[in-house]
Amino acid sequence: MANEQEWRIPMLGSTYGTLTTNSRHARAVACGQAPGPAVHIQSGQAAGGTADDAEDMDVSGRPLHSAVPDLDRFFHPESVALIGASDADGRPNTGITRQLLAWAERVGARLHPVHPSRPSVFGIPCVPSVAALPEPVDLAVLLIRDPLPVIEELDGSKVKFAVVFASGFAETGPEGAAAQARLAAAARGAGLRLLGPNTNLNAFEEFRDDLDGPAIALITQSGHQGRPVFTLQELGIRLSHWAPTGNEADLETADFISYFATRPEVGAIALYAEGLKDGRGFLLAADRAARAKVPVVAVKVGRTETGARTAASHTGKLTGSDAVVDAAMRQFGVIRVDGLDELQDTAALLARARPPLAEGVVVYSISGGTGAHFSDLATAAGLPLPTLSPEKQTELHQWIPGDLSVANPVDNGGHPVGDWRGRKIIDAILADPAVGVLICPITGPFPPMSDKLAQDLVDAAEQTDKLVCVVWGSPVGTEDAYRTTLLGSSRVATFRTFANCVTAVRAYLGHHRFTASYRSPFEDAPRTPSPSLRKVRDLLRPGDQLSEHAAKQLLRAYGIRVPREQLVTSAAAAVRAAGLVGYPVVMKASAPQLAHKTELGLVRLGLTSASQVRDTYRELTDIARYEGVELDGVLVCQMVERGVEMVVGMSQDALFGPTVTVGIGGVLVEVLRDAAVRVPPFGEDQARAMLAELRGRALLDGVRGAPPADVDALVEVILRVQRMALELGDHLAELDVNPLMVLERGQGAVALDALAICR
Amino acid sequence: MANEQEWRIPMLGSTYGTLTTNSRHARAVACGQAPGPAVHIQSGQAAGGTADDAEDMDVSGRPLHSAVPDLDRFFHPESVALIGASDADGRPNTGITRQLLAWAERVGARLHPVHPSRPSVFGIPCVPSVAALPEPVDLAVLLIRDPLPVIEELDGSKVKFAVVFASGFAETGPEGAAAQARLAAAARGAGLRLLGPNTNLNAFEEFRDDLDGPAIALITQSGHQGRPVFTLQELGIRLSHWAPTGNEADLETADFISYFATRPEVGAIALYAEGLKDGRGFLLAADRAARAKVPVVAVKVGRTETGARTAASHTGKLTGSDAVVDAAMRQFGVIRVDGLDELQDTAALLARARPPLAEGVVVYSISGGTGAHFSDLATAAGLPLPTLSPEKQTELHQWIPGDLSVANPVDNGGHPVGDWRGRKIIDAILADPAVGVLICPITGPFPPMSDKLAQDLVDAAEQTDKLVCVVWGSPVGTEDAYRTTLLGSSRVATFRTFANCVTAVRAYLGHHRFTASYRSPFEDAPRTPSPSLRKVRDLLRPGDQLSEHAAKQLLRAYGIRVPREQLVTSAAAAVRAAGLVGYPVVMKASAPQLAHKTELGLVRLGLTSASQVRDTYRELTDIARYEGVELDGVLVCQMVERGVEMVVGMSQDALFGPTVTVGIGGVLVEVLRDAAVRVPPFGEDQARAMLAELRGRALLDGVRGAPPADVDALVEVILRVQRMALELGDHLAELDVNPLMVLERGQGAVALDALAICR
Repeated sequence: MANEQEWRIPMLGSTYGTLTTNSRHARAVACGQAPGPAVHIQSGQAAGGTADDAEDMDVSGRPLHSAVPDLDRFFHPESVALIGASDADGRPNTGITRQLLAWAERVGARLHPVHPSRPSVFGIPCVPSVAALPEPVDLAVLLIRDPLPVIEELDGSKVKFAVVFASGFAETGPEGAAAQARLAAAARGAGLRLLGPNTNLNAFEEFRDDLDGPAIALITQSGHQGRPVFTLQELGIRLSHWAPTGNEADLETADFISYFATRPEVGAIALYAEGLKDGRGFLLAADRAARAKVPVVAVKVGRTETGARTAASHTGKLTGSDAVVDAAMRQFGVIRVDGLDELQDTAALLARARPPLAEGVVVYSISGGTGAHFSDLATAAGLPLPTLSPEKQTELHQWIPGDLSVANPVDNGGHPVGDWRGRKIIDAILADPAVGVLICPITGPFPPMSDKLAQDLVDAAEQTDKLVCVVWGSPVGTEDAYRTTLLGSSRVATFRTFANCVTAVRAYLGHHRFTASYRSPFEDAPRTPSPSLRKVRDLLRPGDQLSEHAAKQLLRAYGIRVPREQLVTSAAAAVRAAGLVGYPVVMKASAPQLAHKTELGLVRLGLTSASQVRDTYRELTDIARYEGVELDGVLVCQMVERGVEMVVGMSQDALFGPTVTVGIGGVLVEVLRDAAVRVPPFGEDQARAMLAELRGRALLDGVRGAPPADVDALVEVILRVQRMALELGDHLAELDVNPLMVLERGQGAVALDALAICR
Repeated sequence: MANEQEWRIPMLGSTYGTLTTNSRHARAVACGQAPGPAVHIQSGQAAGGTADDAEDMDVSGRPLHSAVPDLDRFFHPESVALIGASDADGRPNTGITRQLLAWAERVGARLHPVHPSRPSVFGIPCVPSVAALPEPVDLAVLLIRDPLPVIEELDGSKVKFAVVFASGFAETGPEGAAAQARLAAAARGAGLRLLGPNTNLNAFEEFRDDLDGPAIALITQSGHQGRPVFTLQELGIRLSHWAPTGNEADLETADFISYFATRPEVGAIALYAEGLKDGRGFLLAADRAARAKVPVVAVKVGRTETGARTAASHTGKLTGSDAVVDAAMRQFGVIRVDGLDELQDTAALLARARPPLAEGVVVYSISGGTGAHFSDLATAAGLPLPTLSPEKQTELHQWIPGDLSVANPVDNGGHPVGDWRGRKIIDAILADPAVGVLICPITGPFPPMSDKLAQDLVDAAEQTDKLVCVVWGSPVGTEDAYRTTLLGSSRVATFRTFANCVTAVRAYLGHHRFTASYRSPFEDAPRTPSPSLRKVRDLLRPGDQLSEHAAKQLLRAYGIRVPREQLVTSAAAAVRAAGLVGYPVVMKASAPQLAHKTELGLVRLGLTSASQVRDTYRELTDIARYEGVELDGVLVCQMVERGVEMVVGMSQDALFGPTVTVGIGGVLVEVLRDAAVRVPPFGEDQARAMLAELRGRALLDGVRGAPPADVDALVEVILRVQRMALELGDHLAELDVNPLMVLERGQGAVALDALAICR
C-alpha cells in the first residue's frame, strides 16, 4: 500500500509517519462487518420501520431501500427504566442517575429505577427487576457492567428501546466482538432496538426550546467530539437531536440518518464518524436524505488510514479506502469536511438557509483589500462571483463614491452609517436577480461603523429570502455587534474565518444543485439477472485467476468489445488464425494464473508474416515450458494501435463491496495513479463525472493533433463493468481491463487485455 | 492562459468565474514596476541604511544585498510635524489629529501642527509652514490632499520621514502613477524616506507595553486587513510594530522586512500583501530574515490571478505567476498562508515558541475520538507523530488505565483532576527526548475536568522549553479556562481549530528545519561573466527566435550536451553527415523563427540508409519551400531513443524576472503541466527539490523495468540553465530545452531540441 499512500500525497500534503489512529470506535464499529449481500433490514420488530419495500433487492440480493426505524419514542420516551440507578456518593452511576432525573423532570417523563436491593434512589422507589416494572416502558437505560442477562430478560412488547453504557465489547478485540454479537442477538430475540454498547445519554441532554426554525440533528461516535456542535446552541443555533451511536451493535449511523431525514424539524444532519458499520446501509440512508433534500455534513476520520484494500490488479490498487469513502459520499451528496469547526459552520448554514434563489455570490466589503482577499479565496474554491450589471453598478454608485469598484466585490469605502444609505446598498445588491448570496467580511471591527453595518445586514436579512453571510474576523469575539446583533439573528449566517464561510457557502450551493437533479440510482439498479450472467457462469472458478482468453469471454458476454482473436494450440493453426484476424497481429500466451505476461516475454506485437507467426508460436510455447506455465493456448489477436489507453476495472472495498474504477492508462496509471472510483449502483452521469475527475482528462479530447476519443464508448464500458460488478461482485474478486483502447470518436473502444480473479 | 488555469484546478478546487480582485493596492504597488536590473538600493539618503555592500551586484547587475533602512526614528519619532492638522468638527483630519495627539501624549513625543491660517489646533500653537518648524523633526505627517508641493519644500536634513495620507495616485491608473513617481522623486530629491501615499497612522496605534517576550511585527497593504492581527494584543499576544505600506512609492514591504529582521524584540513578521513592488527586493529581504532566523508569515492575495506571463514555449506556460510567488517564497523560507486566521495563529506561534528540541509531536487527548481525529489530520499534513517507546508507555500506564492506548495519541480517558497524576502524565510526555511538541485538543470543555487540564498544561509549559499547544474547540470562547488560564499564559500556544494548530506547528517545525540549514544563494551567485557568455554573444539577435541549430550552440556553450549533429545544405552533405553521426539518424529543417516543426512535417526520425537520407533531404527542403520557410540548413542528428523525456527552460516572470522551470516531458507536460519553477539564484538543493515536487517523479526512478535515469545529470542541466538565466536573462525572453532526454544513470542527459527567443 506504500504506493497508494504516495500517489495521494499531492492532494493531502506530504505524509510521513505511520497510521496513528487509535480510534476504538472505528475498530468497534467496523469489527466483523464484512460487506456483502447480508440483509440489512430487520423487519417485524417492535420498533421496526416502514417495511413496505424491505423485500426489494438487487440482482445480487443487496437491499435497495433502507428501513426507517421509528425512533420517536427513543428520543421522546414517556417512561424510562433505569437499570443500575444509584445515589451513592462517588459512584459514576450516581451522576448519570441525577442527570436522567433532571431530564425526566424537564420533559415530564416517568422514571423507574431498577435495583435488586435498594428500596429507592433519590427518593424514588426502586423495583427489584425489570420483570417488576409497573408499566411498559419506551426506554431501558442499562448502566450495569454486564448488560447481557438483563437484555435477555427484556421483552419487546414491554420495552421498545435499550441504551447500553457498558464498554469492553468490540472496541477491545475479537472476544469483545463476540460478546457484542451476543448482545445484538439478544436484542433481536427480545424484539427491541438497542443503542450501544459503549454509549451514553447524549440524546437526553438539555436542548434549548426557545430557538425556532430548522435544527441540526447530530450523530456522533464520540460524545466528546459532538460537544462543539451541541454547544452551538449557546450561539443561537438550534439542535433537535443527538444520537451517540457507540459501538452500533444494533442501531447505527444509517438508522439515524434515515430517521432524521423524515423529521420536519431537522434542517441538516451533522455526523462525526470514525468507522461505518455497513457501507451499503450508509449509502441507502444517504440516498433517503438526498431524496428528502436533507443535507448530511460529515467528518469521517481516516484520511491517512491505509485501508483494507489489497489487490493484484492495477485498478484495485488505484484508489485507497479513504478515496472510496470520499467518492461514495459525493455520489450521494454527503458533504465531507475535515474539521469540527467546518462541521459546525456548514451544518448550521445548511440547516437554516432557504434554498438559493440564484447562484451568484456578491462580496460586500468595507475595504478594497478585504473584498479582494475574500474574492480571491472564494474564486479559488469555485464560488461563482458574477460581475454586477452596469445598471446595478450605476445604482450602487448613487451611494458609493465613483472611484470605488462596485463590480463585485462591492467596495463601499466604509459602510455609510449616518443615514439610510448603507441599508440601501445592501438592499440594492440583494434585489439583483443574479444574486443569491451576499457575503460581508468584516475583518477589523470599528464599533461606530461595524455596529451599524451589522444591524443593517441583520435588518436586510429579515426582509429577504436570499442568503446573507457575515465573517466576523476579529479574534476576540466578545464584541457586541458579534455576540448580540449577529448571533442574535437567525437570518444571518455568521462565520469567524473566510475559509469556513467559503466552505459552507460552496456546500450550500452544491447541496441544492445536487438535490435538484438527484435521481436515486437504487431505482434503476438491476433486480433480475441479465442474459449475460447465464453465459458466464461456467467461466467462474472460485479462487482462480482466469486466462486472458477466458477473461475476454467474460467481457464479450457483457457486450464489451475485444479484438478479433483466436486461441490456437499449434503453429499451423496460428498461421491460419493470423490470416483470418488480418496482419499485423499480436500473439500472447494464454493461461490461467498468468500475470506479468509482458515481463516474461509472452507478448509479441506487430507480426506481419506467416513465418513470423510460426516462429513466434514456437518461441512462446518454449518460454512457457521453461517458465513452467501450462498454456491453454496462444492468442492470435488483431493489432489495435491508435487510440487512448485507459484502464477500467472492478475491485472489492472492505466497507462498500465491489467498486468500479477508471483511469488513464500507460505511464499515467503507472506513475500518477490518475483514476476515479465509484460505488455501484450509479448512473451515466456519474460515469461521465468520473472522467471529469481525471487529471489527464484532456487526453480524451485529443492532444498533439490526435482526434478526440470515443468518450461515449468509454462511458458505455464503465457502465458495463458496473453491470458486471453488480451481478458478479460476489463471485469476482477483481476485474481489470487494461488497456482499454478508446478509439477515435464513433469508432468504439476495445479491451486489449483483461485480468479476472474469482472469489 | 486558459490551460494554465485548468491545470491548477486540482490543487485549488474547481474554479470558475473570472478574476474578481479589485485590489487597488495590488494595482498601485505593482504599477509600472518592471523587474530587471534596475538598481534597488538607494544610497546616500538621510535615513539610508548600511550601504557597505550596496555595490555588490551579480553578473547581470542585479543587487545581491538589500539595504536595511534605519527606521528607529520612523517608529519612535521624538518630534513630529502634522501638516493639515485640524480641530474643526466633522473633518476627517480632526479625528486623525486627535489620534496623533493622544499618541504623542502617550509616548512623550513633541507634536508641531502646521497650518497656514489656524493659530492653534486643540490648543497647540500651529506654525504656518514647514519652513517655520521650531526644530528638525523625525517625521512629517501629511494629511493634505496635494502633498507634492510640501514634499518639495522639505529638507532631509530637517525631516527624516514623511507619511503621506492622500489617495488618488497609482491606484487610480497611469496619471496617478505618474504623480506618484513625481512624489517619489521629490522625496529622493529632498533626501528623506516616504511612506505612502494612500496610507495611514497604523504605525502609531496603541501598542500594549505590559506584554513580555518576542513580538509580532506587522506589515500590511490594507489597514483593515491588519486589524485582526493587531487585535491579537487583546488575547495577550505582543505586537511591536505595524507598517501600513500603502502605495509604496518609496518605503516598501521589503524595507520593513529587512528592518524588522534586525530588531531583537521581533519574534516573527506577519505580512498581508496584495502586490509586491519588486520581486528581487522582496527576496533579498526574505533572505535577510532567513539568515537572521526571523520567520516571515505572509498572506499574498492572488491565488486566482491569471498573471502576466505570456510565452510561446512550453516551459513558459507551465507555471502561472502565483505559482512563481509560491515557489519564490518557499525558496527563501517565507511561510505562505491563505487566511487572516492562519496568519494570526502561525505568526503568534512562531514569534513566541522556542526552537524545537525534537521534531516529534505527541497528541494528548481526553477522548480516543479526539486523539484519532487530530492525529489523522496532523499525519495527513505531514506532522511527525512518533510512536512512544515501550518504556514511556509503561510509565504512562502508571496513571492511565491499561486498556487505553498511550502509543501516540495518548488517550487519557479523562484527564485525572483529583490529584497530581494529570500533571505527571504531561510531564512524562514532555520528558521524552523524542518529543518536541505536545498538543492537547480539548473539543468539549467540561469545567470540572478542562479547568484543571488547562491549568496543568499551563503549569507544565512553564517548566519546559518544549512547545505546548492547546486547541480550545468550543465555539463559544468565553469559558474561563480559555480566556483566563490559557490565554493568560505566554508559554502555551492556544488555537481554536485543529486545522490552524496543524498549520502553525508544521510551519514552526519547517521554519526551524529550514533556517538550520539555510545558506543564502546570493552568496554563491555569479558576479563575473563565465567564459560561456563571450561565446554566445554573437548568437543573440534582439527579438528573434533562434534556429534550432543556433539554440543548440547556446546550450553547448553552457556545457549542455546536444546530440552529434551537423547542419548541412546539400543532400550529398547530408549523406556524409549521416555517416559521421552514425545511423539511424534524425533529420530536421533548421531555420530562425521556426516553431511547430513536427506539425509541418519537418522532422523525420529513424532514417537508416544513405538513400533515405538523400530522399529526406529533398522532401524537407521541398516542404520548406512550399511553406515559405527560409532554412539555414538541415540538421542531421544522432538518434537518442532510450531515456526519460524532460523539459527544462527559462522564462520571464513579470515580478521576479527570469525563472527556471523543469517538467516531465511527453504527455505529462502536454496534459498535466507537471512542472516545478524556481527564481534564480538557487543552489543544487533547490534543483533537487524541484524534481521532488514533480508528480511524475517516479519516472526518473525507472518504471516498467526501465533503469533509473541520470538524475545528477538532470540537476546539472537545471543549474546550467540557471546560469544562462542569470547571465542572459536580460537578453533571452525564453529558452526551452524540450525534450531533454535523460539517459540511464551515469550516461548523462542530451538536449534533443531547443527553442530560444531573444528579447
